[in-house]
Amino acid sequence: MSSDRAAKRLTHRVAYRGRLLTLDVDRVREPGGLEVVREVIRHPGSSVIMPITADGRLVLVRQYRYAVGDFLWEAPAGHIDSGESAEEAARRELVEETGYYPHRLQSLLEFYPAPGFTDERMHLFLATELEERQPLPEEDERIEVRLFSVPEALRMVSAHEIRDAKTLIGLALLEERLTGR
Amino acid sequence: MSSDRAAKRLTHRVAYRGRLLTLDVDRVREPGGLEVVREVIRHPGSSVIMPITADGRLVLVRQYRYAVGDFLWEAPAGHIDSGESAEEAARRELVEETGYYPHRLQSLLEFYPAPGFTDERMHLFLATELEERQPLPEEDERIEVRLFSVPEALRMVSAHEIRDAKTLIGLALLEERLTGR
Repeated sequence: MSSDRAAKRLTHRVAYRGRLLTLDVDRVREPGGLEVVREVIRHPGSSVIMPITADGRLVLVRQYRYAVGDFLWEAPAGHIDSGESAEEAARRELVEETGYYPHRLQSLLEFYPAPGFTDERMHLFLATELEERQPLPEEDERIEVRLFSVPEALRMVSAHEIRDAKTLIGLALLEERLTGR
Repeated sequence: MSSDRAAKRLTHRVAYRGRLLTLDVDRVREPGGLEVVREVIRHPGSSVIMPITADGRLVLVRQYRYAVGDFLWEAPAGHIDSGESAEEAARRELVEETGYYPHRLQSLLEFYPAPGFTDERMHLFLATELEERQPLPEEDERIEVRLFSVPEALRMVSAHEIRDAKTLIGLALLEERLTGR
């Protein structure tokens, strides 16, 4: 981050520090001179995995999302733990949530899900050469795992059965439609 | 939301209520019986616009995003105000941020940018028949507006110059690659 791109933080307050989320309320002077209060959810970043089996099927997970009050089909994903690389988090989360251990990971893209109010950065991987092991869900997770063909998954987008941003981006990349190729 | 899809809220606390964000900390019993504490950023929802000019170019905006510490190219977007429909918010935000008033709006998709911790729902529109008016940015916005061909925008994805989730999804939909067609 070069200095002409960095905001100057004038005041800083941690308004909330919880189990997963920290909320900062900062008064800042942004590049260009704008002086404003910004509310920011600080997040450690996450890894998102598009796991493809040897027969070309996509592994998705379904879980209850209290924030939106419904069950969602999503790509496996999870927080990057302290000291962990994005690749390590991708391997760990994929086997924990689905039981599939990826012998091959390829980085597809990094993006910000909601840059207006959180610094969360998502690291999206294609996972192949999957070995079946034992799933190890976390205590606060109840996860259903299922395999879909890519056309099936695209139909789920049209039918509003896939409504999660990271999963939509992963599918678009599988279809090679965000790369100008 | 049917009852078997609804979590039972056992306790509720507003941990923070700010200018834009409200943070709830709720103890809940989720469908299936899991009893957990969930931290949720409550959000009014937002409209995201993919504006296309008569000559087929895409209107993008660039602004400083304090949360991620950098300038980002993004689709025009903004919060849905109280009492406003998603369409009304799309029209208002597009003219405020870019000066273009859309005479035609088509709903493309609704999705959740980060369902793990916020209820924000994004309403994505294709905007055409654009009329040039006067931009009216909000006090805390400094916005650069520029037109790009769709191939240019896709090259910006490959070059990591577009890193915002809603914009990536909008581009994929322009390319008709998330609909199974």
